[in-house]
Amino acid sequence: MLEKFFKDSLKDIYWAEKHLTKALPKLAKAATSEELKNAFNEHLEVTQTHVTKLEQVFEMVGEKPVAKKCDAMEGLSKEADTVIEETEEGTATRDVGLIIAAQKVEHYEIATYGGLAALATALGMDDVAEVLEETLAEEKEADQTLTSIAESDINYQAANEEDEEA
Amino acid sequence: MLEKFFKDSLKDIYWAEKHLTKALPKLAKAATSEELKNAFNEHLEVTQTHVTKLEQVFEMVGEKPVAKKCDAMEGLSKEADTVIEETEEGTATRDVGLIIAAQKVEHYEIATYGGLAALATALGMDDVAEVLEETLAEEKEADQTLTSIAESDINYQAANEEDEEA
Repeated sequence: MLEKFFKDSLKDIYWAEKHLTKALPKLAKAATSEELKNAFNEHLEVTQTHVTKLEQVFEMVGEKPVAKKCDAMEGLSKEADTVIEETEEGTATRDVGLIIAAQKVEHYEIATYGGLAALATALGMDDVAEVLEETLAEEKEADQTLTSIAESDINYQAANEEDEEA
Repeated sequence: MLEKFFKDSLKDIYWAEKHLTKALPKLAKAATSEELKNAFNEHLEVTQTHVTKLEQVFEMVGEKPVAKKCDAMEGLSKEADTVIEETEEGTATRDVGLIIAAQKVEHYEIATYGGLAALATALGMDDVAEVLEETLAEEKEADQTLTSIAESDINYQAANEEDEEA
């Protein structure tokens, strides 16, 4: 039963990662700061390797890769769409909103891969846990990159003045 | 514009926290381990204080507390419902599933409150940032409590044997 739960969870995150490869180009296009655009584009490449790694994990556990709709990732992705709809192009406010939306996605993935790696270890599949932990480390790195862009590249003062001008 | 975005985000997390006060009793009821039941019940009480703190923040920024549907929290909550539907009552596997689902919620809130506190600071509202950081610290604590229950109180061996018996 634990193994079935583990495999079902794999299908969920597989859907989520594939969905993210479609969402990230939209975020990159919507961003203003060059650093943020680059971060989204680079994370797209990393996300594509996460999809491949999940396919490798499916093979290791003797399953065909199947994606099952992940309600949480769909909700997170809708939240990013709302940021784009409700902010103006070229503003620092939109960049701040995109960073926060993307960090929610990263935290979702951190919790997911953390849980999956713990499950794989509990099931005695250390090799599978290792692959999942590699991805976990990269999601944490992506979250930190976004924090440092928020701290160094986004002009909050400008974002605030946009408010006063509006 | 940044201030509007901040206020909109407050409405979102206000909905999410209120929604969580309805979801947590279901998680407590579904859990088997006493430690996990207690953790969910205790987190319910803490969540009620987070709702009150958000009402305090609304007042500090001169707004009435309004809840706006948060798609991400709705998705996360559906994911927890799926765990309950797809696992059997009284099993360690269900407890493992509930912990992972709850940790995704905690990470969602950690990313949200982290973002909100940074926004409040950027907007020069240090007193508001302080209230939000208190909640942030409590969400991190809840996440750690769940990790330690997963590590010490859940019998993964039993969960695995459930699989073999199924």
